[in-house]
Amino acid sequence: MLDPAIDSLLTQRQQQDVDDLIQWLRIPSVSSDPTAQPHVEAAGRWVADRLRSGGLHVQWIETAGNPLVFAQTPPVPGVPVALVYGHYDVQPAEPLELWETAAFEPDIRNGNIYARGATDDKGQVLTHIQSVLAWLQTGRPLPLQVKFLIEGEEEVGSANLERMLPELADTLACDVVVISDSSQFAPNQPAITYGLRGIATFELTVSGPRQDLHSGSFGGAVLNPGIALCKLIAAAVDDQGRIQFPGFYDDVQPLTDQERQQFADLPHDDVAFATSLGVRALFGETGFTTLERKWARPTFDVNGLTCGHQGAGVKTIIPAVATAKLSCRLVPQQDPDKIAAALEDFFQQHGPAGVQVTVKPDHAAPGMVSGIDSPYMAAAKAALAEAFGCQPVLIREGGSIPIVQKFQAALKADCLLLGWGLNDDNAHSPNEKFALADYHRGIRASAVLWSELGKLQHG
Amino acid sequence: MLDPAIDSLLTQRQQQDVDDLIQWLRIPSVSSDPTAQPHVEAAGRWVADRLRSGGLHVQWIETAGNPLVFAQTPPVPGVPVALVYGHYDVQPAEPLELWETAAFEPDIRNGNIYARGATDDKGQVLTHIQSVLAWLQTGRPLPLQVKFLIEGEEEVGSANLERMLPELADTLACDVVVISDSSQFAPNQPAITYGLRGIATFELTVSGPRQDLHSGSFGGAVLNPGIALCKLIAAAVDDQGRIQFPGFYDDVQPLTDQERQQFADLPHDDVAFATSLGVRALFGETGFTTLERKWARPTFDVNGLTCGHQGAGVKTIIPAVATAKLSCRLVPQQDPDKIAAALEDFFQQHGPAGVQVTVKPDHAAPGMVSGIDSPYMAAAKAALAEAFGCQPVLIREGGSIPIVQKFQAALKADCLLLGWGLNDDNAHSPNEKFALADYHRGIRASAVLWSELGKLQHG
Repeated sequence: MLDPAIDSLLTQRQQQDVDDLIQWLRIPSVSSDPTAQPHVEAAGRWVADRLRSGGLHVQWIETAGNPLVFAQTPPVPGVPVALVYGHYDVQPAEPLELWETAAFEPDIRNGNIYARGATDDKGQVLTHIQSVLAWLQTGRPLPLQVKFLIEGEEEVGSANLERMLPELADTLACDVVVISDSSQFAPNQPAITYGLRGIATFELTVSGPRQDLHSGSFGGAVLNPGIALCKLIAAAVDDQGRIQFPGFYDDVQPLTDQERQQFADLPHDDVAFATSLGVRALFGETGFTTLERKWARPTFDVNGLTCGHQGAGVKTIIPAVATAKLSCRLVPQQDPDKIAAALEDFFQQHGPAGVQVTVKPDHAAPGMVSGIDSPYMAAAKAALAEAFGCQPVLIREGGSIPIVQKFQAALKADCLLLGWGLNDDNAHSPNEKFALADYHRGIRASAVLWSELGKLQHG
Repeated sequence: MLDPAIDSLLTQRQQQDVDDLIQWLRIPSVSSDPTAQPHVEAAGRWVADRLRSGGLHVQWIETAGNPLVFAQTPPVPGVPVALVYGHYDVQPAEPLELWETAAFEPDIRNGNIYARGATDDKGQVLTHIQSVLAWLQTGRPLPLQVKFLIEGEEEVGSANLERMLPELADTLACDVVVISDSSQFAPNQPAITYGLRGIATFELTVSGPRQDLHSGSFGGAVLNPGIALCKLIAAAVDDQGRIQFPGFYDDVQPLTDQERQQFADLPHDDVAFATSLGVRALFGETGFTTLERKWARPTFDVNGLTCGHQGAGVKTIIPAVATAKLSCRLVPQQDPDKIAAALEDFFQQHGPAGVQVTVKPDHAAPGMVSGIDSPYMAAAKAALAEAFGCQPVLIREGGSIPIVQKFQAALKADCLLLGWGLNDDNAHSPNEKFALADYHRGIRASAVLWSELGKLQHG
């Protein structure tokens, strides 16, 4: 049970909590865009100020890239330490023309706040900051020490944080990492995510003639790099959705009967899901259910294609170059480096004479699964049950939070992935949103979580 | 032999002829770009003014699109009438960053003038205007009537001119159409082009989910439109370069042994050709030589690909839409409408569940071959032999001049395709150029052509 004083304070603070979120969302902190760098840093300063305003001492930790914002409440002996991790950077907003309102001018309609970063991750990480600040505002001590680590490069792979983890291990020392960067299983059906997929990203380039050629004068004489690129990508995955890179599935652990049953027991309707996405049929690797494919099977996706003439009208050329942005989602045990090597080998071996094939790996991270029987998990279940009024389900997630597996390794800490948002919140898509009710409920669930974790004896 | 008075006048006029070309090339008359429309019209006005300056009466013929510029010299009874056709519109200049000097700021270096349109087609059509104006400047009558038709939509398919041909048939009435929009066979090896390929252009769109999706949360659940597009394109042509649209080759006439021999007799070196294009190997339909593939076999090319994230860095999405700009080059007897239907059928039938496939045909035109034994051909051979100092070879061209076949049909006229430029003049590519020596020689060859055609009796 949440302390009534805090409970009522959370209700009073709702408008302020929303105003805070609007302020933060106005900052276009797109970490993949070098020209947005000042905005990225401004978003970091904003959250530092917010933490400072609650009386916390902020550490502004410089990295080779965007700074880390760190803060902590006073130590509480004998109980676990929690580290809240989140990120102040966001995905690019493109394609801009598909947004109903501007991506960085937050707009509230139908109970949702619309803006890039609303759910991924500004809105979600802010729930934990607001809950701690509310708790502190009551004048009572928090029942455990909470540390905050908010970074600015999650959307570009967290490489700089990862590199600094060893030297930050003392600062970040904790028993459990709390991350809200995922979703409820369904509206009002809370979930605890115990598995994430890894990721490996690439740029594939096929180069042909020195420059674009007239498709009349030269058509038939040279291999078209656009066609060569398509053939390489087409060869990478068969019509049953099986990925063709040699050894790609070697380290993929089969799902246990128990886990398949657990997935099957979750309420999921393929037809309704397809309808919600606007497709007539779902598609994926033969022999697996949709949830299995999304959560626990690896994938290969085209993220973008760029080649030749893209404007209005016709330009009849053989393009000199064609490029594809590619990503694989990986399951635990798959090694991103091995996958990168397999992918590069495959494309090089399938690259035909007459074009030059290059593969440039970008960021990568392994997947993870965490134990489902820990006392932290039990505390989280209790907190979610109280805030949502029903028991949470245990799920996995198809997305990647690259740093999670690194935290597990570097800090020897458990991870709690508690999603407050919804699957249709349009993370990484136009019209990203976060329901204000979910935001407020997340703050409340977070407040209860501190109470539940504070009851545990520290090992 | 060219009249010595004209010969010497052509030498005197060289600087003025170059200055004229520079002026015209400065006008960015990109017909496929709606925002460039005022420039396109300005390029038409420029050539109208140039014709007017020589004492010709210009007809400014409005169409549903860009105007036609028409002018004619006085009738000469008893000899053939020649119609010079060319175009004042140009291809887009993109990719701009690959130009050494700006596409619409003509730059002369190493004896070449560099600008979009230098050879395609402003520089080449201007040779005929300059030769006629020079002839008129001497005060002597031209030995035949020359008509000029300069249009502004050749690079977007000439649809409006085509539609108006029946009503313009009297105005344009002629015995032979003269077009310089092709190339010499090799430097200093003049050529008369007796065949052109046709063209059919398309936009292929593959639509999947309503909007871009997070590749983590949704990867494995839906078919990726980028991959689906690649698979469709990959299926369209096999690894031997054979196009797979049903019936695509049905109307393709086999090359005669005589024509294959004629091609084989031309000096052509695959290794040198590959080197000139910057590729390690040539590629095309198995069983045909490079010249056969370029000139007399149909092709399928990707002109452009657009899908998902194209900027810097990584954006891990399943793109909602993927599009390809496609073109086929066709040989005579292939019907562009039949080809369009076959292509659309193929892509619709191969379009998998889970995505929507649409094919939008754009401009199209059949190919052509003209007789090689006409008196006009003989006159052209004599003119080129005098101007170049060696006999021209007979060749075909892989490119398309869509209106040529329409002229043949509507005007019952022969066609002479006389290329003054070079194959490496970068038509449709960055750093398009035209050698000033080729420009001046083209003017001289044109002047001799009027003399040779003027010797013919009109049937």
